[in-house]
Amino acid sequence: MAETGSFDYNALFAHRVTVAPRMVASGQLYTYDFAVGHPAPDALPLQELVEATARALDRDGRELAHYIAAEGYLGLRQIVAKKMALHEHVTVDPEHIIIGNGSSQLIAMLIDCFLDPGDTVLTEEFTYVGTLRRLQRARANVIGVPADEHGMRMDALEDTLRTLQQQGVQPKFIYTLTNFHNPLGVDLSVERKRHMLRLATAYGVLIVEDDVYGDLRFEGDTPPSMLSMDTTGCVVWLGTFSKIMAAGLRLGWAVVPPGLFPYLIDHKLDSGTNTFASMVVAEYLQGHLEQRVHDIVQVYQHKRDTLLHALDTYVSGKATWTRPKGGMFLWLTLPPEIDTERHLDKAHGADVNYYPGVAFSPSKATGRNCMRLAYGYPLRSTIEEGIKRLASVLPL
Amino acid sequence: MAETGSFDYNALFAHRVTVAPRMVASGQLYTYDFAVGHPAPDALPLQELVEATARALDRDGRELAHYIAAEGYLGLRQIVAKKMALHEHVTVDPEHIIIGNGSSQLIAMLIDCFLDPGDTVLTEEFTYVGTLRRLQRARANVIGVPADEHGMRMDALEDTLRTLQQQGVQPKFIYTLTNFHNPLGVDLSVERKRHMLRLATAYGVLIVEDDVYGDLRFEGDTPPSMLSMDTTGCVVWLGTFSKIMAAGLRLGWAVVPPGLFPYLIDHKLDSGTNTFASMVVAEYLQGHLEQRVHDIVQVYQHKRDTLLHALDTYVSGKATWTRPKGGMFLWLTLPPEIDTERHLDKAHGADVNYYPGVAFSPSKATGRNCMRLAYGYPLRSTIEEGIKRLASVLPL
Repeated sequence: MAETGSFDYNALFAHRVTVAPRMVASGQLYTYDFAVGHPAPDALPLQELVEATARALDRDGRELAHYIAAEGYLGLRQIVAKKMALHEHVTVDPEHIIIGNGSSQLIAMLIDCFLDPGDTVLTEEFTYVGTLRRLQRARANVIGVPADEHGMRMDALEDTLRTLQQQGVQPKFIYTLTNFHNPLGVDLSVERKRHMLRLATAYGVLIVEDDVYGDLRFEGDTPPSMLSMDTTGCVVWLGTFSKIMAAGLRLGWAVVPPGLFPYLIDHKLDSGTNTFASMVVAEYLQGHLEQRVHDIVQVYQHKRDTLLHALDTYVSGKATWTRPKGGMFLWLTLPPEIDTERHLDKAHGADVNYYPGVAFSPSKATGRNCMRLAYGYPLRSTIEEGIKRLASVLPL
Repeated sequence: MAETGSFDYNALFAHRVTVAPRMVASGQLYTYDFAVGHPAPDALPLQELVEATARALDRDGRELAHYIAAEGYLGLRQIVAKKMALHEHVTVDPEHIIIGNGSSQLIAMLIDCFLDPGDTVLTEEFTYVGTLRRLQRARANVIGVPADEHGMRMDALEDTLRTLQQQGVQPKFIYTLTNFHNPLGVDLSVERKRHMLRLATAYGVLIVEDDVYGDLRFEGDTPPSMLSMDTTGCVVWLGTFSKIMAAGLRLGWAVVPPGLFPYLIDHKLDSGTNTFASMVVAEYLQGHLEQRVHDIVQVYQHKRDTLLHALDTYVSGKATWTRPKGGMFLWLTLPPEIDTERHLDKAHGADVNYYPGVAFSPSKATGRNCMRLAYGYPLRSTIEEGIKRLASVLPL
C-alpha cells in the first residue's frame, strides 16, 4: 500500500467534512486521575463474565452465525426491558429498544436522523463532551441553557424556546442528562421534568433523556423519568451498561417512541450491534443484575464520600462544589480569576489530572474557573492525597 | 412511556430522512435456504472462543474498564496486520487500520465521509445489497458498470468515467468486490486491477476494495490486491471476520491510506468498536488463524462442489451459472422470460429460498431472470434436494 500517497482527497469529501484536528484522548493516566469518566478496573466481574460466556455460547452460540436485526440481540433487549421495569418502574416493549455500541453510537444515530447543518439543539449550559463533539461535527447550533442545583432552569429554557420561536427557528431536540449530570453532578427535579415535558409538547421539540448514570444512586429512591411520564411520544431515553459493567463491553440502549422507531432504525447502519457481547452481558445480568448494581454503587459511594471529605479538608472556603447523590462526577467552581485550563500542566507535573470546565461549554464562554472531578477511577486510598496535591498547584 | 404517541416528528427530521418502508430480513430460514449469506452454525469454534475468552480476560480484562480509541482495540489491529501480511502479502501499519462493527459500519463511515445527496458512486452492475441500501439511503447516484467472468469491465468503466467527466460530474468512489464477488461469484483479474488503479488515479476517484470473501479461496493462489499495488493512496481496503469466524462477532476492518485516516476516523462516532469481542477474537486467532481458515475453506469448498454438481444434474441446458473459485455465492442466469422475483413464493412453498437477481441491481433494470445462490448455510446433505426442488418450481 501507499506509504506517502500523492492522491488528492479534497475534491471528494462531503460538504460536512471539516479539516478539524483529530480529538484524541492521550490515553495517559495519572496516579491521581480525576479526569477519566470510567470505573476502576478492579471492580470488573471478569471471572463471572468468563462463566457467562461459557453458558451463553453453550446454549445460544450457534446464533452467532446469523446477522441480527439492526436493533440488536433480542435477549439483551429483553434484559433491558426487565431492568427498566425494575429500576425505572416503566413498562417498555423490547421491540422499542435499540441496542448500540455504547450510548455514543445512539447519540450519533439521533444526530444523523434529526440534524441538518445549522440546526439547533438545546443542552444544559455544560454538557457531556462526547455529545458536544458529535453535535459540533454535525455543524449544529448548540445552545446551552443555564442549570442550577436542580438541573436545567425551566425559566431559562422557556425563554430560549420562545425567543427561537420568534426567530422562526425550530429546535430539533433538548439533550438533557437527568441524573447525576455529567459534568455538574446535579439532578433534574421531578417538577422540572414535568415542566420540560409540557414545554417540549408545546414547542414541538423532542427530548433526549440521557440517563447513563442513573443506576449509580447512593441516596433516595429513583425519581420518575420523563420517559415514564411521557404521554405524547416526545422522549427518547438513553441508557448504558458502561457504568455498571464496563465501557469496553460497548453496550448501550435507546428506548424509542413507537412512532419514531422505524425512522431511527433506518439510521442504524452497522447490521446490528455486537451479538457476542450482547449475549454474554444478557447471560451475566440474568443472574447478577441487582447484586451487581448494589456492589458497584458501594464502590462509587465510598469514593464520593472520600472526595467530599478531602475537598472539605483542602479547599473549603476557597471553592464551591456540587454534592452528587450518585454517579461519578462533581463540579468544582474556583474564584473567577483562576483559569483551570492554564493550570493543567502544573497539575500533570504533580501527577494529578482533571477536566477543565470550559471543555463542557457549547459556547466556550463560561466554565473557565471550573473543573469536573471524576471519582470513579482513582483508588479510594489516593483520593485524599490527590486533592491535597490539586489544592497545592492551584493559586488558592 | 407513550403507547401511541401524538407527537409530530415530521417537522424535526433532517432533510436526508426518507419515509421509506423498513427493510427487514424476515429472519425466516428454509430447509433449502440458498438466500442467506452466512456460514452454517455447525462450523463455529464455540468451545475455543470460550477458552479464548478465559485467557484474554485473565490477561487483559482490566482494559475493559477503559474507553479505547475510535479505531479500535490495538491487539486486534495487530492481528489484522499480521493476517494482511500472511494472506495478502502486504505490509500494513496497525495505525492505519480501523476496526468496525462488521465491514457494514465501515461502509457507512465511508459514505458519511464522502457523499452528499446526489453524489455519484460506481459499482459492478450487480452489487452487495447492504452497500446498495446504504448508498440509496444517502441519496447517492449509483451507476452499475457491466461485469463479466473477469469482474468489472474496464472498457465500460473508462467509458463511464469519461462520460461523467464530460458532464462535469466527479464520482466519489468505485465500490468493487474483488474476490468471489457478491452476488456474481467472479474475480476481478489482476490485469483489470492494474487498469482500475490507473483509471482511479487519472480520474481522481477513490477505490473501495471490498474483499470480505477473499479468505475463502478453494483454488489457486491469492492474487495481488489493488491495495498492494497502490502507490498513490487511492485504495481503501475492507476485510471482515464474519466469514471465517462468525457474523455475530461483528468485527470487520478497513485499511486506510495514511493521508485519509484522520478524516475517516472523524466519522467513526461510536467511541470504539467492541473491545470485548476484539480481545477474544484476537486471542483466538493468535493461535488458530491458519488452521481456522483452512477448516472453513474445506466446508465451503465441499458445498460449492455439491451445488455445482446439483446444477449440472437438474438445470443443465436450461440455465447458465458462474463457477466461483471461492466465497459463498454463485449467479444463476435463467431464460429471459423467467422473472425470479415472481417465483419466490412458489419456491418458499417448496421450502426453498434464494435471492432474486434484481435486488442487486442499482438501476433495477437488469437481473430479473437471475438469482444468487448462496451455499454457505444449507447443509451439504440438503443441497442436491434443494436444487431439485428449485428446478421443479421454475418453469424450465
